[in-house]
Amino acid sequence: MNLIDAFLRRSINKQTSISEKIEILSVIKHYSCVEDELRSLWTQITFGTKLNVFPNSDKFNKIVIFGMGGSGIAGSIFQELYSDTPVISINDYRVPNFVEKSTLVIGISYSGNTVETMTALDECLEAGARVVSITSGGVLSQEKYDPLIIPSGLQPRSAIGYLLIPLINTFMSFSASDYKEAASLTRDLDDNNSDIKELAESIVRNRQIPFIYGFTPFKSLAYRWKTQFNENSKIFAYSGFFPEMDHNDIIPMKSTYRKDEFRFLVFGAGDNKFITERINATAELTDSQFTIIEPRGKSILAKLFYLIHYGDYLSYYVAKARGIDPKEVDVITQLKRTIK
Amino acid sequence: MNLIDAFLRRSINKQTSISEKIEILSVIKHYSCVEDELRSLWTQITFGTKLNVFPNSDKFNKIVIFGMGGSGIAGSIFQELYSDTPVISINDYRVPNFVEKSTLVIGISYSGNTVETMTALDECLEAGARVVSITSGGVLSQEKYDPLIIPSGLQPRSAIGYLLIPLINTFMSFSASDYKEAASLTRDLDDNNSDIKELAESIVRNRQIPFIYGFTPFKSLAYRWKTQFNENSKIFAYSGFFPEMDHNDIIPMKSTYRKDEFRFLVFGAGDNKFITERINATAELTDSQFTIIEPRGKSILAKLFYLIHYGDYLSYYVAKARGIDPKEVDVITQLKRTIK
Repeated sequence: MNLIDAFLRRSINKQTSISEKIEILSVIKHYSCVEDELRSLWTQITFGTKLNVFPNSDKFNKIVIFGMGGSGIAGSIFQELYSDTPVISINDYRVPNFVEKSTLVIGISYSGNTVETMTALDECLEAGARVVSITSGGVLSQEKYDPLIIPSGLQPRSAIGYLLIPLINTFMSFSASDYKEAASLTRDLDDNNSDIKELAESIVRNRQIPFIYGFTPFKSLAYRWKTQFNENSKIFAYSGFFPEMDHNDIIPMKSTYRKDEFRFLVFGAGDNKFITERINATAELTDSQFTIIEPRGKSILAKLFYLIHYGDYLSYYVAKARGIDPKEVDVITQLKRTIK
Repeated sequence: MNLIDAFLRRSINKQTSISEKIEILSVIKHYSCVEDELRSLWTQITFGTKLNVFPNSDKFNKIVIFGMGGSGIAGSIFQELYSDTPVISINDYRVPNFVEKSTLVIGISYSGNTVETMTALDECLEAGARVVSITSGGVLSQEKYDPLIIPSGLQPRSAIGYLLIPLINTFMSFSASDYKEAASLTRDLDDNNSDIKELAESIVRNRQIPFIYGFTPFKSLAYRWKTQFNENSKIFAYSGFFPEMDHNDIIPMKSTYRKDEFRFLVFGAGDNKFITERINATAELTDSQFTIIEPRGKSILAKLFYLIHYGDYLSYYVAKARGIDPKEVDVITQLKRTIK
């Protein structure tokens, strides 16, 4: 079986005991529908804490992360969270000149067969960089990419826990209770999300385009919501962030055409006065209705995963309200087949 | 007079001769209307080649650029063009931990009074980083920010030449003929842009939302177009890029609601086969009409400024077609007054 193979080939980390491996394998199952995938997030968080990308980052003066779409977003979110070393997250196949021996390169591709990421990683190996990958299989699971193998069988966008937690876990030091809080809040959302369903139905009833606004360290999270609306709901969406949007979007927010056709979804900034003041002033000056989504949780990690999961459910329910299959992404598959 | 003062306080560079200064001052004038501002771009390019932010970057292992809105975009465009050293462009007030003594920090604010940029630069000075600024005046023109003073009197978004060229000029080595080509192509657009006017009128007639797609090194340029639509035309716009959009936007492009209400503006990728193939396949598979804007020019610099200027005119004519003053940005001023 694929998963067991993976864990035998490269165990979770070199010191993981047999009993731990059994415990881990017991929470892994194959997911037959999107509902199952959504409900797996809390186990991904719990399980992810046992995964490490790389034992020691001290020797590197920068980290460059390559990844596209649902895989790449893990790198972008990590880039915002971690700022002890420069992290450059690239959603492209082009490798900057500054990648060299003292650069740690991480390639993230759930399938392991994303052409952009493969192209970039090969070039980084040639440049002499230290390369690792996070993948569930495919080409990127080859030895030369020093892969961290994660469980397969999910849609890439549903594997956000497996893709992101190992990065956080390797480089940052959240406490066990932070991880627990994150897992418990996402699990709670699985059972209590009727308000999210209502919000989704209102978006579809009004045929609105969601505009999602975040702020540091949740700017990429707003982009994650955008891509979930794209892939799950099959509608366009836009993401931006405070305070940058107050230098441009604020103007059409006051006087564009079609204004009632947009839905402004804004992450609540809680006790961050700088951002909260701007959110309130922007709504007032532009005479706009903001739907504020206040993250639950004490730690940044918990807030992050709460908001990730909120967006998952929102985009899922928009798909349901449109009578559309959230899982289907045929046109991406077709494109990959068209282009060699 | 402000400008002469500025050049006396900190001349273009320490070695600039009096006759050069006179030549420079002769091309500077104050601009009374947006048309004048637009028509100034070619002189900004010509004049900008005499400006240097910093004599020598060898000692720094990374460059961090702070700036918001119309000023910040210069940092983002530069980040994509230059890849010998990591450049991290930040449109925020928050300073990452990795800013320290060996970091070159560049603060860009046309007014010199942008609160986010001022806050960030003060923190960077405290962290012991080497700080310089690019500004036309205000707080950031104080000695402690080691300012490069550029001509005042423009809207920040119209000063893109003055804001961007010094960065390019300091760190990169384009030839004199590349700069000439860029200046000459933008000058030509000033007199030949009736097709851009027609495109703008068609966007307004159909009350469309522009979706602009770029590719490396023109991703931030697509964002520049978005912000020009926001500020000049007072309409929402969205920017994305190939190949990332083929992992998400491609799906709603096929099956969203309201599709005829979007206008897809795509930068032509010329002989970049990887991107050109994707543009064509995406249009075909999603049955979409792309308006391809093929940049003129041989050098990257010329293509860059051609596309910048094309977007300037397009957003300007959209404003005109809507009967709106492209210069007016009152709500931004109000916000700055509301928030202390």
